[in-house]
Amino acid sequence: MIRQFADVEPTHFNNDQAKGVAARVVIGRKDGAENFFMRVFEIAPGGSTPKHRHDWEHEMFIHSGEGELHMNGQCTPLRSGNVVFVPGNEEHQIKNSSGELFTMVCLVPSKAPEL
Amino acid sequence: MIRQFADVEPTHFNNDQAKGVAARVVIGRKDGAENFFMRVFEIAPGGSTPKHRHDWEHEMFIHSGEGELHMNGQCTPLRSGNVVFVPGNEEHQIKNSSGELFTMVCLVPSKAPEL
Repeated sequence: MIRQFADVEPTHFNNDQAKGVAARVVIGRKDGAENFFMRVFEIAPGGSTPKHRHDWEHEMFIHSGEGELHMNGQCTPLRSGNVVFVPGNEEHQIKNSSGELFTMVCLVPSKAPEL
Repeated sequence: MIRQFADVEPTHFNNDQAKGVAARVVIGRKDGAENFFMRVFEIAPGGSTPKHRHDWEHEMFIHSGEGELHMNGQCTPLRSGNVVFVPGNEEHQIKNSSGELFTMVCLVPSKAPEL
């Protein structure tokens, strides 16, 4: 199976916790994935994912743009080509503090919701 | 954990089966990953991964460049932003038929070797 990530219908998040986020499940259970799922998140300038924690890990790859990872009380810049491992139960948040779209790939184990 | 993928020491493959491939384990067991591993492959112009099969799946994200997926007797073009699911036991090969570096993220479940 091959698809362009942008061809997948996005779910938009704009609420108290998440702002300017377009989220897509690009490889999920219906594609035959049994062990882990791939999602792609686009975050608009000024937007952010929710500040949250859960008992599963994230493995992320930054595809384009510039952002920030907030974790362990620290703010670390993110740019294209960065990889991030967020262990389970670690509070984390991604922000786009730049003026351009920020795009990241984020994978979760199959015990997590697809999105 | 945050790192730039290019800062990880690559393993180079140049033999009868794989040509012009620089492979990196960017999130592995030593980083705390228990369920799946992230690798980044750079394929030089004219290079290719081996034509092979194994009983675990691949989830891929094309970061940059242009290449080809050979699978099921078909050749399908690959470009930045494409996602690919290769089911277990499916013979597959990635080629860089362009004049520029091809870079892809490729994930495997933890029952597979990290590289």
